[in-house]
Amino acid sequence: MSFSPLIERLMESLRVLPGVGPKTAQRMAMHLLERDRDGGRRLVAALDVALERVGYCRRCRTLTEEEVCGICQSARRDDAVLCVVESPADQLAIEEAGGFRGRYFVLHGHLSPLDGIGPEDIGLDQLEARIAEGGVEEIVLATNPTVEGEATAHYIAAQLAPQGVSLSRLAYGVPMGGELEYVDGGTLSRAFNGRLPFRGE
Amino acid sequence: MSFSPLIERLMESLRVLPGVGPKTAQRMAMHLLERDRDGGRRLVAALDVALERVGYCRRCRTLTEEEVCGICQSARRDDAVLCVVESPADQLAIEEAGGFRGRYFVLHGHLSPLDGIGPEDIGLDQLEARIAEGGVEEIVLATNPTVEGEATAHYIAAQLAPQGVSLSRLAYGVPMGGELEYVDGGTLSRAFNGRLPFRGE
Repeated sequence: MSFSPLIERLMESLRVLPGVGPKTAQRMAMHLLERDRDGGRRLVAALDVALERVGYCRRCRTLTEEEVCGICQSARRDDAVLCVVESPADQLAIEEAGGFRGRYFVLHGHLSPLDGIGPEDIGLDQLEARIAEGGVEEIVLATNPTVEGEATAHYIAAQLAPQGVSLSRLAYGVPMGGELEYVDGGTLSRAFNGRLPFRGE
Repeated sequence: MSFSPLIERLMESLRVLPGVGPKTAQRMAMHLLERDRDGGRRLVAALDVALERVGYCRRCRTLTEEEVCGICQSARRDDAVLCVVESPADQLAIEEAGGFRGRYFVLHGHLSPLDGIGPEDIGLDQLEARIAEGGVEEIVLATNPTVEGEATAHYIAAQLAPQGVSLSRLAYGVPMGGELEYVDGGTLSRAFNGRLPFRGE
């Protein structure tokens, strides 16, 4: 015996969610059918409308249901600094950290020739056109500190070099609040090489 | 900044799923919107139709989209033995363990007076009517080995006593394949009290 076809299909479908295996999918399906059908219906409606209407911001490519996202529309952001990130989640993390008042550009991934992901797939033609408009003085290449993220940053830097815009990268070093004992070697040697004068503030 | 309203609504809705907090909901929403919209659409369709059509089997109350479930319909099951379980997931676990060839009755919960869950909420009137039809010789009370499950089993036993049907309960003891060191005291003392002659097979 297994569950009836519609329940099996629901459990199978729930496995599209990241980190959800067969046991978790079964628990989720039973929870929705046994204890929270209203919640299930809200999920159907919310997911349906999000898939239907959420697309990319025409200007920065972040996920939004508007033509142009809130940050791109805001008059209170600094046009002179543009932060390039791999994903909307990275953008949100930077926003939540606070302090950055410039604009964004979202790549939705990184260059990955082996997977057939080239410059146009991550919107680099659009990024170049945006810089060509003028007004951007500095680009912060905030791609992930991974091999692919680094390679993508280098590629973008090389592409944009002729436009004479200043380029920067997030600082590398030991994370705040951590213990050195648990910091990986690569991070630690980067932090050593980038050591700063002690100011005793 | 946060995400746009439709994305926020999607993340909020995903939290109806058991074990899904804010961070997981964000990761799920981003995954669906960024990398698997087809999977998301399949989930919408599967959940929608399941919520619409899956109900209770008229005979055993398990979850099914049919009027009468597969096991109740099957001519190859033994009508004389009826296994009472708290949930369809418990029923599936017993089926997957194999060996039981009787029928089932699903309570969808246990008695819980403090939560206002009484005998009619777990279908006991229907269970009594079913026994009154005749044909059932033994009822296996396979409610959970918890305080509530035990109390429910005792209540059902008392209710069905006048009908003269034989009642049984799953055996208690140490789980197969475990190490005694990690078995809780309650289980261990139950296993001691229920010890059996060693047969050396």
